[in-house]
Order: sequence, then C-alpha cells, then structure tokens
Amino acid sequence: MKLALDAMGGDLGPRVIIDGALLALERDELSITLVGDEEVVRQHLEQIPGKQKPLLERVDVVHAQTAVGMDENPVDAIRKKRDSSIMTAFELVKTGEVSAAVSAGNSGATLAAGVRKLGRLKNVARPGLATVFPTLKGPVVMMDVGANVECRPVHLYQFGVMASAVSRIYHVEKPRVGLLTIGEETGKGNNLIKEAYSLLDRSRLNFIGNIEGRDIFKGDVDVVVCDGFVGNICLKISEGLVVAAMKMLREEILKSTLAKIGYLLARPAFKKFGKKVDYAEYGGAPLLGIKGIGIVCHGKSNSLAIKNAVIGAIEMEQLGLNELIESDLAAGLENGEKGF
Amino acid sequence: MKLALDAMGGDLGPRVIIDGALLALERDELSITLVGDEEVVRQHLEQIPGKQKPLLERVDVVHAQTAVGMDENPVDAIRKKRDSSIMTAFELVKTGEVSAAVSAGNSGATLAAGVRKLGRLKNVARPGLATVFPTLKGPVVMMDVGANVECRPVHLYQFGVMASAVSRIYHVEKPRVGLLTIGEETGKGNNLIKEAYSLLDRSRLNFIGNIEGRDIFKGDVDVVVCDGFVGNICLKISEGLVVAAMKMLREEILKSTLAKIGYLLARPAFKKFGKKVDYAEYGGAPLLGIKGIGIVCHGKSNSLAIKNAVIGAIEMEQLGLNELIESDLAAGLENGEKGF
Repeated sequence: MKLALDAMGGDLGPRVIIDGALLALERDELSITLVGDEEVVRQHLEQIPGKQKPLLERVDVVHAQTAVGMDENPVDAIRKKRDSSIMTAFELVKTGEVSAAVSAGNSGATLAAGVRKLGRLKNVARPGLATVFPTLKGPVVMMDVGANVECRPVHLYQFGVMASAVSRIYHVEKPRVGLLTIGEETGKGNNLIKEAYSLLDRSRLNFIGNIEGRDIFKGDVDVVVCDGFVGNICLKISEGLVVAAMKMLREEILKSTLAKIGYLLARPAFKKFGKKVDYAEYGGAPLLGIKGIGIVCHGKSNSLAIKNAVIGAIEMEQLGLNELIESDLAAGLENGEKGF
Repeated sequence: MKLALDAMGGDLGPRVIIDGALLALERDELSITLVGDEEVVRQHLEQIPGKQKPLLERVDVVHAQTAVGMDENPVDAIRKKRDSSIMTAFELVKTGEVSAAVSAGNSGATLAAGVRKLGRLKNVARPGLATVFPTLKGPVVMMDVGANVECRPVHLYQFGVMASAVSRIYHVEKPRVGLLTIGEETGKGNNLIKEAYSLLDRSRLNFIGNIEGRDIFKGDVDVVVCDGFVGNICLKISEGLVVAAMKMLREEILKSTLAKIGYLLARPAFKKFGKKVDYAEYGGAPLLGIKGIGIVCHGKSNSLAIKNAVIGAIEMEQLGLNELIESDLAAGLENGEKGF
C-alpha cells in the first residue's frame, strides 16, 4: 500500500511528520509519498540518521507550491491554494497514485479538501469525522466529531452506519450503537435526537438506544452517534479534562515528600495509564464517507500519532471500509431505511 | 435563614438527606424544614444520635402526601402530584416561609416545580441550571447544564448574565465569560453560537470570546455559556471521564506490588485530589432566573453534597443573587442589549 503524508501539516513542523513516517515504515510494508515544499522536505530527509536511511527507499517526495496555515479559513484556503500540500495529497488519492492521505494540518481544510477532491461515497449524505476513545473495556468510535455542526436526523443515522463499519477494525462483530443525549429514556433530548432515535431504532444497526455522556467511557457501547458540534466539544473537553486532572493530581503529590516517593514507585503504572489515554496512541480521526481514505490528525501530533494515523489508514484499506459503508447503506435502503 | 429540603428526593433515601441537613446545621445558623412523608421523616429523626439531637431544635417537618419518582416524566409528575414533596418545598418558598428549596429528587421535576411555582425574575426569558466545575485555578460556572435543550441566542446571552452573578460568590469581580463552541475564532460554530456571540460581544459582560472544551478546565475563564443540551452532555462526560480515568489508573497500579506500595504512600495526595474533583464538594446546581432560590442536587448526592447544596443556597441568599440578576439585566436593557 502507498499513501500520501502532508509534510507541511501540524504545529511541530516537517521533521516530526517525517519521523512518524519512518516509524510506520519500520513496522509495515508500505510506501509513503511526502507532499510539501520539496526543498524543505529534502533538507529534512538528509538529516535522517544512517541506520534509518534504508527506509527512505520506500519514500518519495511530491512538490507542493503552498501550504494551508493552521489559522486560515478552511474553505477559502482550499479554494485559493489548489496547489497546497493538502490538496495535492488528496489529488494523489484521486488519481490512484496512493490509497490514502494523512494530514496534521488545518483540520477544516483537510476535511474540505478530502470532500472536494474525492467526492462522497454512494448514498452518503454528509461525510464526517470519527474518533476513537479509550474506555474501561474496549475502544469506542464516536462520529461526528466536528465536520457537520448542523445536522439532520438522517445524517446521524448514517454516522451510525459509518462508525459501525469502523468498529470492525477492532473486531467488533455487532457494534452496539448509542445515541448521545441528555437522558437515557426514549424521547429525551432535542428534536434532532428524537427524530434520529426513530431512524436508528428502525435500522439494521445494533442500536441500543440513548446514552448519556457518562456512559461513553464505561465501554458498554461500541459506537457513539452525535452531531459534529456536540462531538467536537466532547472530544476537546475529554482532552482538556484528563490533562487538567493529571496536573491537579501531580500538584497534590508534589506537596508531600512521602507522596513523591510513592509516585516514583508507582511511576511505571502512571506511564502505562498515560499511554492508554494518550490520543497519540489512537492516531488521527478518519474522514468517513468520501471516495478514498483520509485521516485528519491533531495539530499537535507527535511522530507516534503520525505513525498510528498511517497504520489506521492501512487498516481501513485492508478492511475495505468504504466498500463496507456502501454495502451497509445500500442494504439499509433495501430494508426501507431513510435515504437522503 | 430558613430553607426547605426535599426529604424524599435522591437515590439514597431520606437518611442521607437528613444527615446532610445536620451537617449544614452544625456549620451555619439556619433552620431547615424537611418536606416529605411525615411518618417516614420522623422515624428517621428518632434514630439521630443523642449528641446531634440539639440540632433538631432548628428542624421542622412539613408533610407531603406524595413524592415524584426518579423515573417519572417531570412535567406530568408535577401536574398530577401537586402535593408532592418537591412541589410543597417550592410552595413554602412562594409563601415566604422559607428562602430556598433544595432537592436531590427528579431533576426535571425540581426544575419544572421551581419555575411553575415561583415564576421568572423580571426580564428573564428562560430560567436554567448552572453548575460549578473545579479547574486548575478557580471554580468555573457553566450555564445552562440541562434545563433548556433548544435555545435562542438571547437565552445564551442571559445565561452569561446570570452565571456571571453566581461568580461573585467566589469573589470574582469581573467574571470572564466564554462562549463554548468548536473553535476559538469568531464565526466558528453553528448559527446559534454565531448570533449569541454578537449579543455577548455587544453586552456589558466581560466577554472574552469563543472557548473550546479543552479550555474549561484550564481556569482561564470564570463563566462558560452554552445551551442546556451541550452543557448537560459536558457535565455528564466530565463525571464519567474522571471516574473512568481513575479506574484505569487503579487497574494499572494493582498490577504491580511496587506500584501498590507507591500508591499507599501517595494515598493522602490522591484523597486530596479526589476531594478537589468530587462533585459533592460543589453541592448542587442552582436553578437561576426564578423568583426565589432553588438547588437541584445530583440524584446520587451523599450527605456532604446535601450540606454543600444548602450552604450554596445560603451564599446565594446572602449575595442577593436574584437582585443582582435583575439589576444586571435591567442595566443591559438600558444599554441597548437585547430583551426577549
């Protein structure tokens, strides 16, 4: 498999992206096309240590004249910068030169570029972003986490179909789908939720009903369906809360010598825990519903996150995710489920 | 000050509520009216240990024929059960016999009873629920966290006014108000957010602009404004995440003897941390915008949470919170801010 990696994306610069590519190349049989300012990328490649040099046989560089800044308006940026690294990466997917595009750049622009360049899968009303959260049991897939801030009920139903397909990467046979709202009883929530409930309830999905925010991390559900506004807030609040909680705990520990000694003894356990909740372990957010594979990484992605995003793209390709989504939506339509 | 406490509310039964009342009575000069099935309440009061008996001089009981179940439909329940403990508690506020009502019963019913019995403060479009979160710096007040699942921009603006008034309990002079959305730049979010942004921006509030979920716990903002659907999900997700994260950490610690020893040494720090993030320390969620004081407690409230909710009600009374809200809204109207 060959994929395109936006070398200019992310807050930490091209070197971190390239290191992520090398980590992925060490693990898997794949080739990576780095897309970006060729001169800058080649300068970074020259600095790669000797023992990693052989990996570069599976790396090539495609030049992109411009790059989209992290703070640019996404829609304007992709309209004006057609030769940007992110647009070029998706162009390579479109022409079939690579199977997937991965970027840690401007999320909105990555999203817009993916949808614009590749178009939607058959019967998909709205592509969206999924993300994977760790829970007490297994991972849970949440969709949408930011692509669609205003949704109609059919969009939520389709997010359930698409995220259920992603669950199969984690070998979940009949993913349990929950609708995120503010009370577990049927009929709780706003109008969007009430209508989406009835669509999900009549569908072929393994819909278990409404769930509340506190249920997400228990691991009793495999898929969480919500609109992109709510989903993005959930994602950010979760990130912020774990960081803040760990800081508060550390502050308390630093106040006492005994606690500090205790912390040193328990540090490996803290590290393992940290690894479990580190977003970098879960790579990026797949952009689902487009004709191709696209992964949107966190702007702050380190090389581990880039590696895991690349591996995520490989898994999606191997699973035949897009074929699954199309056949599941078609089966739903045959079953009388709502089209858009 | 005298307040009414719904003795029948909450998952843990009347004894926990009564113990909470006694904890509050030990701390403060106040009287408490326990509202509920008089026979049941008196049976519990008889079991109070001797040394706490003197506190009962400041306790009286008002009989209520029925109680609203935790799973009943709130609106139906308060319509049918006019003699329920929660309706009776707010009736006592209405007649002026007490200054505040506190309940850990059915949240929706408490909300509906408070609004129905007491009515809205002048110029308030929609009463709502606020909650207080611990952060790395001080507490942050979030509103609405569940009363209004569909909001108009003016509601969000008014939540900002009401929550800012609550901030003064924590001695914040010019509370920094943030609008919760999915990107910090102006114009990010759904239509509700875009319009609410312009109302907040033109207001007398110390509006600092859009904030994202991850900013809530940093402590760089004193007030977070959102609709009740988003706010309730944030509240529940935060609860669920801290519990899940602590369980994951404990699981890792239990895997190693050394880590277990370390944990024992650091346990006091863990406990202090636990106290910091324990919702019980923050009492209940004040129902703002009604002509009187109402506090909605978590169904799982222990006696510490009840005590803190009672103390919260006292602080709201002492601050003259409702007078503040009315005068702030009136000053806003004079300033050309939007009424409803």
